[in-house]
Amino acid sequence: MDDLPVRLAIAPAHGVAARTRRWSPAQNQDAVHDIARSSQKATYSETNEMNIEAKFAGREVGYDVPAIPGMSEEEIQTPCLILDLDALERNIRKMGDYARAHNMRHRAHGKMHKSVDVLRLQQELGGAIGVCCQKVSEAEVFARAGIKDVLVSNQVRDPTKIDRLARLPRFGARIVVCVDDLANVAELSAAAEKHGTSLECFVEIDCGAGRCGVNTAAEVVAIAKAIDAAPGLKFTGIQAYQGAMQHLERYEDRKAKLDAAIAQVKEAVEALKKEGLEPELVSGGGTGSYYFESCSGVYNQLQCGSYAFMDADYGRILDKNGMRIDKGEWKTRSSS
Amino acid sequence: MDDLPVRLAIAPAHGVAARTRRWSPAQNQDAVHDIARSSQKATYSETNEMNIEAKFAGREVGYDVPAIPGMSEEEIQTPCLILDLDALERNIRKMGDYARAHNMRHRAHGKMHKSVDVLRLQQELGGAIGVCCQKVSEAEVFARAGIKDVLVSNQVRDPTKIDRLARLPRFGARIVVCVDDLANVAELSAAAEKHGTSLECFVEIDCGAGRCGVNTAAEVVAIAKAIDAAPGLKFTGIQAYQGAMQHLERYEDRKAKLDAAIAQVKEAVEALKKEGLEPELVSGGGTGSYYFESCSGVYNQLQCGSYAFMDADYGRILDKNGMRIDKGEWKTRSSS
Repeated sequence: MDDLPVRLAIAPAHGVAARTRRWSPAQNQDAVHDIARSSQKATYSETNEMNIEAKFAGREVGYDVPAIPGMSEEEIQTPCLILDLDALERNIRKMGDYARAHNMRHRAHGKMHKSVDVLRLQQELGGAIGVCCQKVSEAEVFARAGIKDVLVSNQVRDPTKIDRLARLPRFGARIVVCVDDLANVAELSAAAEKHGTSLECFVEIDCGAGRCGVNTAAEVVAIAKAIDAAPGLKFTGIQAYQGAMQHLERYEDRKAKLDAAIAQVKEAVEALKKEGLEPELVSGGGTGSYYFESCSGVYNQLQCGSYAFMDADYGRILDKNGMRIDKGEWKTRSSS
Repeated sequence: MDDLPVRLAIAPAHGVAARTRRWSPAQNQDAVHDIARSSQKATYSETNEMNIEAKFAGREVGYDVPAIPGMSEEEIQTPCLILDLDALERNIRKMGDYARAHNMRHRAHGKMHKSVDVLRLQQELGGAIGVCCQKVSEAEVFARAGIKDVLVSNQVRDPTKIDRLARLPRFGARIVVCVDDLANVAELSAAAEKHGTSLECFVEIDCGAGRCGVNTAAEVVAIAKAIDAAPGLKFTGIQAYQGAMQHLERYEDRKAKLDAAIAQVKEAVEALKKEGLEPELVSGGGTGSYYFESCSGVYNQLQCGSYAFMDADYGRILDKNGMRIDKGEWKTRSSS
């Protein structure tokens, strides 16, 4: 398929909890590592190069790790995740450069990879400021691994999960969670007070998906006020993300959806400012829309995830010029 | 749903490798444990009762374990496997009693639960003599956990996986694998010799599924002879199991399929005896057929798995009297 050796990253195919729970943060770095397809040795990052042999000493292929550096591709033990590291690094750098050029914070979405290793790469190479998680168990793994800025991009209502969330600032991380209901404000506040911690809150706006979030600026203001007044909580801003529109094939269709969302968000921000509650962060955007949020004048944080690995469904959507985005904008394979 | 407290077993919802790899054999016993639905405390087994508090000390609910004894059902953190322990234990005892009464060895199939804990329960309460695994990675976990009789009820052809298999007898386990091709005999023999171990082999007969196994007694004899002559290998017997027929709804349809299989197996056994290669074990049977093998006069080992938990598909099949087997023969819930 390729004439030249391709740098591949291999990781065991477990979920984040299973993969990382039993690994110390230092060991975590083994979970993604290079295999050269020929016998060429390559390393995950330059800082790991000197330690790579020590890290694999005593690890049994198939039982502890899917492969070790220097093995050929056909010796890799499945199931495992295999990535083209050149494409991965290029994608991560590209999104980092874009965010920097547009003065956007980029909080990489970790639910796509569920890997502390990949998140670290997104921070190192792509300037990501932290991580988005979809649920508390993911946030636990990232916070314990030393990631300092963690957003649960969802509502948390189960009492035990709220309790788990409220413990996480103890690991030294800023913990942000989305809220769309006044009752949840009281629950989160009580849990933070119980654990002597502080939780930051985004009010989530439903910008068209009909899944969660509030619909009016008045609701945004009411919840923001409640957060602002609640002990143990801080009002940090707004999340306005629409998942379904990301996958609309035509650029113009995605733009129309985002234009509507931006108008909604601007209205909410104006209403908040009138109450002296100017949001520090306005967060949203995915691989199918980040250019819209970046040029909106109101968003200041992106939450893209899929761009790093790319996937078949995102690959099919078209860019401004009618090209599949995996044929131009984003790579799934090395170009060599 | 139930008026009385129900004993529930809770386990994290990871595959066997993820669940057990990072736990020592002693710790493994924590992976399945009791939760009483009210505040009644119950324990996994009497021997664990004294240690149960020590075992959960320092474990964080949701991160380390899905629940701890004494928690209510709604506090259990998902995803996790929840079992009715009374039903589980009753099913395990029932199959154990049946096998004993019919002078059959029962090798419980571990691919159903992928849990060392459940397998130990099948050994303790149900007299299971060991485990069947569907692949090498499962066998690795069971062998490392101290299970002494492990069958990979499948062919292994990947060179690295053959190498992994050939290392397993070092853990003190009898390792048996299925063979249906002469070339595989040489591969297995070379790997066993390389590691200074011994592998036992079943010749697999295709009794109707068309998936793997040989079709004629002559082929069985040819492969058995090759195994018998190969250094590092031992010819142990025959596997003749048909997965698809287990799920036929009508008892008579299942019986017809098994009658044909039994005839095939008897012919192969006779041919082997003529060559002085009488099989020590003739293995097969599942939750939908074990009574046929047990009364066949030729099988002496069962490989049932699903009976312990039961499942929706097996539940639908009918017994001799036209009753769904999950309404009579096997339980999915406590009868209280």
